Amino acid sequence: MRVPIILINFKAYETSYGRKAVQLAKMIEKVSIDTSTEIIIAVPSTMITRISEQVSIPVYAQHVDGLPEGPHTGAITPELIKDAGARGSLLNHSERRVRLDEMDDALRRMKKLGLESVICVDRYELVVPIGMLKPTAVLIEPPELIGSGVSVSKARPEVITNAVQEIRKVDNVYLIAGAGITLGEDVYVAIKLGSDGVGVASAVMKAKDPQKVVEDFVRNAQRALDER
Amino acid sequence: MRVPIILINFKAYETSYGRKAVQLAKMIEKVSIDTSTEIIIAVPSTMITRISEQVSIPVYAQHVDGLPEGPHTGAITPELIKDAGARGSLLNHSERRVRLDEMDDALRRMKKLGLESVICVDRYELVVPIGMLKPTAVLIEPPELIGSGVSVSKARPEVITNAVQEIRKVDNVYLIAGAGITLGEDVYVAIKLGSDGVGVASAVMKAKDPQKVVEDFVRNAQRALDER
Amino acid sequence: MRVPIILINFKAYETSYGRKAVQLAKMIEKVSIDTSTEIIIAVPSTMITRISEQVSIPVYAQHVDGLPEGPHTGAITPELIKDAGARGSLLNHSERRVRLDEMDDALRRMKKLGLESVICVDRYELVVPIGMLKPTAVLIEPPELIGSGVSVSKARPEVITNAVQEIRKVDNVYLIAGAGITLGEDVYVAIKLGSDGVGVASAVMKAKDPQKVVEDFVRNAQRALDER
Amino acid sequence: MRVPIILINFKAYETSYGRKAVQLAKMIEKVSIDTSTEIIIAVPSTMITRISEQVSIPVYAQHVDGLPEGPHTGAITPELIKDAGARGSLLNHSERRVRLDEMDDALRRMKKLGLESVICVDRYELVVPIGMLKPTAVLIEPPELIGSGVSVSKARPEVITNAVQEIRKVDNVYLIAGAGITLGEDVYVAIKLGSDGVGVASAVMKAKDPQKVVEDFVRNAQRALDER
Repeated sequence: MRVPIILINFKAYETSYGRKAVQLAKMIEKVSIDTSTEIIIAVPSTMITRISEQVSIPVYAQHVDGLPEGPHTGAITPELIKDAGARGSLLNHSERRVRLDEMDDALRRMKKLGLESVICVDRYELVVPIGMLKPTAVLIEPPELIGSGVSVSKARPEVITNAVQEIRKVDNVYLIAGAGITLGEDVYVAIKLGSDGVGVASAVMKAKDPQKVVEDFVRNAQRALDER
Repeated sequence: MRVPIILINFKAYETSYGRKAVQLAKMIEKVSIDTSTEIIIAVPSTMITRISEQVSIPVYAQHVDGLPEGPHTGAITPELIKDAGARGSLLNHSERRVRLDEMDDALRRMKKLGLESVICVDRYELVVPIGMLKPTAVLIEPPELIGSGVSVSKARPEVITNAVQEIRKVDNVYLIAGAGITLGEDVYVAIKLGSDGVGVASAVMKAKDPQKVVEDFVRNAQRALDER
Repeated sequence: MRVPIILINFKAYETSYGRKAVQLAKMIEKVSIDTSTEIIIAVPSTMITRISEQVSIPVYAQHVDGLPEGPHTGAITPELIKDAGARGSLLNHSERRVRLDEMDDALRRMKKLGLESVICVDRYELVVPIGMLKPTAVLIEPPELIGSGVSVSKARPEVITNAVQEIRKVDNVYLIAGAGITLGEDVYVAIKLGSDGVGVASAVMKAKDPQKVVEDFVRNAQRALDER
Repeated sequence: MRVPIILINFKAYETSYGRKAVQLAKMIEKVSIDTSTEIIIAVPSTMITRISEQVSIPVYAQHVDGLPEGPHTGAITPELIKDAGARGSLLNHSERRVRLDEMDDALRRMKKLGLESVICVDRYELVVPIGMLKPTAVLIEPPELIGSGVSVSKARPEVITNAVQEIRKVDNVYLIAGAGITLGEDVYVAIKLGSDGVGVASAVMKAKDPQKVVEDFVRNAQRALDER
């Protein structure tokens, strides 16, 4: 992972799969190359192969089960996503929470396979407990702001500030901020407040001109980083 | 779906993904063509595209979430599996149970998209309640026999007999029997007792010579059907 | 169970436990006796004994686990609620859904122990599948109206009408309607449309004068029944 | 809480409810008084009131939901168990796991109400992450040994040793060891290795002479403590 982290969660919108999703991924790759900024995309499990074959930017799964190979109907194991071409996975998103023991199981297997991991968390008080499991990054998102169009940067900047202080207590874990991030200004503030990057979803996935949005996000992320 | 139904659940074994899984799928396709018998394979979500691009036999997902397009991180919606190349999906396997309302939601969306559906159930008393939701087929599997090497055909034939009687109370829903099916004889008995086909997993996925196993299963399925 | 069925779900409000809950239960018992109408109250598991010792009206649990006696930490088994003094239980409320197999397990044990059962369901299409499991009653509640103050009777009367038609396909199972029932008129309409009774919660639990509300509900229930 | 901690989880056995459970609780209280040793009993939610009215030893719930007062059908909130007479609760037992955010929610509410808390955990690596949430105690239990009759003390003493080292990194949180504890010797070893006490269940609940078992446990706990 490279700072600033821009993580785009494709979720399961109509633009999240098929040809539209591949085109979106290619456009994001172009912005990534043009701006020399790493952009991570978390795509549906069915799309990992198709997208990772087409782009060089890091492709993540949106969820992974902490299970070994074996009789697990419907499971998405770390081996499966790695084989499909993923470089890592989101885990514990508010739309797909897991238990702490499952999280630990998943992280152990992911590390063994060299997969990156971004664990979501809904409150800054859980940043250290989860950071101690040593994921690549913790993504803090107040759930009530997710998809709201009201950004954590504006509505609850203290969540970011507190999370940034917490993450310093564990070594080598990035802190990403998310929820409701809509404008370049939201990205700028989140990073200015000390986060290593931002997690976004609907602002890109439902945008009329997603390229403009992504470019704006990257520009603001770099600007905030330069000023720090 | 065509009778006899042979449904092979790939689960998440080491042979269930990557090149091994593609080769296995191709071998199964060959047996399907050689014997003029439809064989359905249920593969991990990450493998649907890769496998369905390589074979002409029906490829199923192992699980599907009954959710519409939208902000559903980690979900596997009917739209996603269809787009990936799936012809249908397993649902409610004992390793991945869902609630009745979720099942109904998933079935409605699957039907709208023209996807087939095989709902698993652990007892014959639930064959009619679930059959009334009109899936393509109900797969009955006593969970304690799954992966045991002891087949439902031998250990609990009355489960099949009762399920066959129950399924007759709903129109146009197939009845598949499964759990512990290991030998051709198990397949023969299951269909002789009135089921429309069998669901298998470890017997194929962990076989030294899976082709021999699948051929044997198909031969016995056809023989049982001919004798009925 | 006796028609008209008035089922008051105490949920977990501040009035649902302690002395307030006992007083409420006694008041409801008084209305029940004065009006010669059975009123069922579903109380928190911690309150079953205290309330059932004080009143003669039927006391239900709000949830029950379909587990046998054994090592089940935190489970509320049918044996436990019966021993505590419950006459039955709600099951599968939208605030506490269970799977179909768990429902069937619970119902089998409850019947063995002579406990009554009210299974909640969110759509009329599931009335028959669940009715086939032979609970004492099915309670239909469109979840979006629960606690809304907008009653199913007014906003979605067709849900009741359809559910009433469905329940006729299974013998000896009552049909109760609920969600958002606030006024006596809501009770009247629900029963006039063919339901055997109503399920209510916040309208009573958060009322300034709950006695007046319950009396009004009973009066309207009886009136609707008389007119049918 | 006082060291040595003896926590008896009643679970849901046939001896866990009704008159048998009350008698068992009284017997345990007698041992507690005779030996001047605190013994905590975790009982089914339906039994909290009946038992806490009869004994002076600490009575715990076996599970609690981290929810506020409100429309939560079937929930067991901190307010409910406190009102019923509980002094605290188990949480996250392997037979009733919860998510980390739910755990944090429950702990906040329990602290506000002055309730004690014992959070179960299946591996020593999670002792600190959970200890940071500041429960009264962490109970470590390798799930594969629970109810096995093979004790953690004998089969996996390193789990205790490691957990003891971990708990020192957080202030003011007790460490309890459990799983398969059957003999006085198991209790002795667990405390000798540094734990503050033991969690037991089947050894007492299924004993022919539970008094003898409890007395033996207390004697060995005190002996280990004296020798440390």
